[in-house]
Amino acid sequence: MAHDPEREFVHPPAEASRRTAQAGVLNRRQLMVAAGVAALASQSPGEAFAQTDSSASATERKMAQPSTITLERPTPKVLKVIFSNPPVNLIVPETVARLHEIVVAMSEDPDVQVVIFTSSVPEFFFNHFDLGQASAFPALPGADATPAWVDLVLRLSRAPFISIASIRGRTRGGGNELALACDLRYASRQQAIFGQPEVGAGIVPGGGASERLPRLAGRDRALEVILSSNDYDADLAERYGFVTRTIDDAELDGFVDGLASRLASFDRAALAAAKVQINRASLPPDADLRAAYAEYAASLGWPEFQARRPRVRRLIAEKGVEEVERHLGHYIGIITQQP
Amino acid sequence: MAHDPEREFVHPPAEASRRTAQAGVLNRRQLMVAAGVAALASQSPGEAFAQTDSSASATERKMAQPSTITLERPTPKVLKVIFSNPPVNLIVPETVARLHEIVVAMSEDPDVQVVIFTSSVPEFFFNHFDLGQASAFPALPGADATPAWVDLVLRLSRAPFISIASIRGRTRGGGNELALACDLRYASRQQAIFGQPEVGAGIVPGGGASERLPRLAGRDRALEVILSSNDYDADLAERYGFVTRTIDDAELDGFVDGLASRLASFDRAALAAAKVQINRASLPPDADLRAAYAEYAASLGWPEFQARRPRVRRLIAEKGVEEVERHLGHYIGIITQQP
Amino acid sequence: MAHDPEREFVHPPAEASRRTAQAGVLNRRQLMVAAGVAALASQSPGEAFAQTDSSASATERKMAQPSTITLERPTPKVLKVIFSNPPVNLIVPETVARLHEIVVAMSEDPDVQVVIFTSSVPEFFFNHFDLGQASAFPALPGADATPAWVDLVLRLSRAPFISIASIRGRTRGGGNELALACDLRYASRQQAIFGQPEVGAGIVPGGGASERLPRLAGRDRALEVILSSNDYDADLAERYGFVTRTIDDAELDGFVDGLASRLASFDRAALAAAKVQINRASLPPDADLRAAYAEYAASLGWPEFQARRPRVRRLIAEKGVEEVERHLGHYIGIITQQP
Repeated sequence: MAHDPEREFVHPPAEASRRTAQAGVLNRRQLMVAAGVAALASQSPGEAFAQTDSSASATERKMAQPSTITLERPTPKVLKVIFSNPPVNLIVPETVARLHEIVVAMSEDPDVQVVIFTSSVPEFFFNHFDLGQASAFPALPGADATPAWVDLVLRLSRAPFISIASIRGRTRGGGNELALACDLRYASRQQAIFGQPEVGAGIVPGGGASERLPRLAGRDRALEVILSSNDYDADLAERYGFVTRTIDDAELDGFVDGLASRLASFDRAALAAAKVQINRASLPPDADLRAAYAEYAASLGWPEFQARRPRVRRLIAEKGVEEVERHLGHYIGIITQQP
Repeated sequence: MAHDPEREFVHPPAEASRRTAQAGVLNRRQLMVAAGVAALASQSPGEAFAQTDSSASATERKMAQPSTITLERPTPKVLKVIFSNPPVNLIVPETVARLHEIVVAMSEDPDVQVVIFTSSVPEFFFNHFDLGQASAFPALPGADATPAWVDLVLRLSRAPFISIASIRGRTRGGGNELALACDLRYASRQQAIFGQPEVGAGIVPGGGASERLPRLAGRDRALEVILSSNDYDADLAERYGFVTRTIDDAELDGFVDGLASRLASFDRAALAAAKVQINRASLPPDADLRAAYAEYAASLGWPEFQARRPRVRRLIAEKGVEEVERHLGHYIGIITQQP
Repeated sequence: MAHDPEREFVHPPAEASRRTAQAGVLNRRQLMVAAGVAALASQSPGEAFAQTDSSASATERKMAQPSTITLERPTPKVLKVIFSNPPVNLIVPETVARLHEIVVAMSEDPDVQVVIFTSSVPEFFFNHFDLGQASAFPALPGADATPAWVDLVLRLSRAPFISIASIRGRTRGGGNELALACDLRYASRQQAIFGQPEVGAGIVPGGGASERLPRLAGRDRALEVILSSNDYDADLAERYGFVTRTIDDAELDGFVDGLASRLASFDRAALAAAKVQINRASLPPDADLRAAYAEYAASLGWPEFQARRPRVRRLIAEKGVEEVERHLGHYIGIITQQP
């Protein structure tokens, strides 16, 4: 695979770069819509996500743009959010802007009860941030300039719909942190792999792992996952408590669809109210999530991180991005052995 | 089995109804005793629970009334609280009043060190509230009108004795929430089944599940249990962390009795003081438990709950209450497919 | 084995007693060094821990004294803290003073990234406090007289290095509480055994178990471990969540060394900053740890504890200290059956 070794951990392919550029133009407007949402509230979700007819609003037109995210709505109450950024499903700025927009819109939709996050890229679920574009990740308008990611995960955990991560393939860094912000996480026993590679790269996590993993796995197991920067298979992730259940790959889709149908048959108000109760007992403080993101952003400037970047680039140049991303837990453990 | 389909989820049998009516008369006095307890403090527990001689006090006479709860005291330091409300061990108002009274009295008893909760009804441990009698569940006297249930579970978790739920059979809703308020929970691998059916019924839990499950099982597993309203076998409950241990059915009674004997051989003050330490690290805030009960009570008035009631009644009329309660997780998932 | 039955649970052997006496002289100075640390900051760790040349400072000379703790530094970034107090590795006052000193010094050492706690005594990792010397455990200088143990475990959990307990053999009471204060805990499947014997002895834990176990294992499992005072094998400890992982004995050392090497290859600042994030989400309040230690100290004066002491002494006189310590969970359950 062709790639630019100046980008790490991987280089977004040409098409994704173009899409990202477009998304860059759209971000401000998308986020203003996200802050406002009055227009979306008057639309049916079908209009917002499935149509591009001649009377489409500005929002609808934007939603029809090429994106790393595509949507399906198998039934009026169930939405599928499909991540497609080949070859390795890196989270790019457009991914965050688009996910933010979707979560805002779906929170206003009185019909949607269940949102399933899944991937169309083999071997990769949601992967880590593309650090080559770290400075381009969007922020909300306003004096606070809240990172869109922080607002996204805060909203996702409090949304009136139920979110399910259906995890097949590598799930690392921000991708794992998106899964951790979901309400339910089901992992393919054979194909799901988890990791938080930040510390091995010389930075700290900022998307929620350091707040959510300790509450799910306990202090020591969270420390091991985050400090070791290693890969975890689905069975160990389940034993450690950071996936809800591990399920045989052949049964995963059926299980998730069955649970989604069941939840969709229940009263939306009861689902949402029970989630509010459980959130009261279990969510990390918003301030901690904000602090962690700021610490991650600051760590991007650390000299040791800068010193490790060329080593990562050389690894990718030598092995190829897909090989490195497939076994990132291994490669990040030998970075300092690289020349 | 004969039943009145106007009652859901099940109809208390004739005898239980009569007992409940008696209990209704007694509640106010029982609760005043509970608030006072001066009289009980001067009694030995043997007098309070085992005798009905001619000099029995008013409290003793009340305790000798027919009840959904019976008591055994195999040794001076160990009490067994046996739940008997056939056919499906629904929690009725009398159950709550009686349990409250017992917990208050036992907390004052300087001899009792271990209280074991168990059932005499095959296939059912403590089951959910009888929602047909939802408006009759007792409250404490006083301006606050604290629900007796809330006071019961708050006192149980802080009691100076050690409480053990020995779980065989279905354990749902308020029954599971009573178990969650106990200090220790041992489940029959072959016969224990757990569930929180509230959300599927169109209401929210209010007896402690939304506060205690997230602290034991993590946010996502608590969400799954409560939102799915499904049945969980003992092995999965153990993996999820909301039973202490699952034990082969043939060994359950021996294990619990052995542990109770061991704890009874220790110093009561040491047991109670260590429990205070652990409570400091682990109890949910009282205010959250109060809020959840109020949310449950409010949800009983929701139109969607009212709309689902006739469907439940028709299910019971068609299948019989025992069949529906045996497989409530299944039936609650198909309620909206009922005409 | 010769022993003095007036000491319980076990009698420190002659050599250990002598070493302890020396340590008693040194404690005050060591702790003043601990409070100050200016001198240590100007030393390289190699000087502080490996040399006893003629120009050695007072600190270095003290560190060369016989001790229940020895140190190895296999690489500049990895330190091994080896506990050696045969025959049963009781924690004596000198152990605490020495560990405190090491944690303070290592926290100031800019090179050390990983500290591994291990044992050189067969069948015993870190065992419980020697209660026969309970009144001699050191306190920090100052009006607060903070117990050195409390300061030790607070510092260990917040230290900029990563601490790993490599657990082989019995791990009880304060020994288990030291492991619980570490960042990571790996247990030999075949040889690790855990227990908190305090309640069975008639006192309460005070070294952190009542604060940390509920956060790792949940309220009920923490209650079971602490109230039952029983022994737990490594597999059950892993299921309950209070060891990070259980590993086959033959692979334990290799696993721990491999993880230590991996962590040592990462950036120390990234490790430390990620640990700070996770601590924010997971550490118990300092005040609770202080309160628990005070409660433990107070419980040493309880009459029931005093009444149980002669029974323990007779058990040791009859069975031998090694036998009793090997199966302490069993023996503590039958103390009241002793004459």
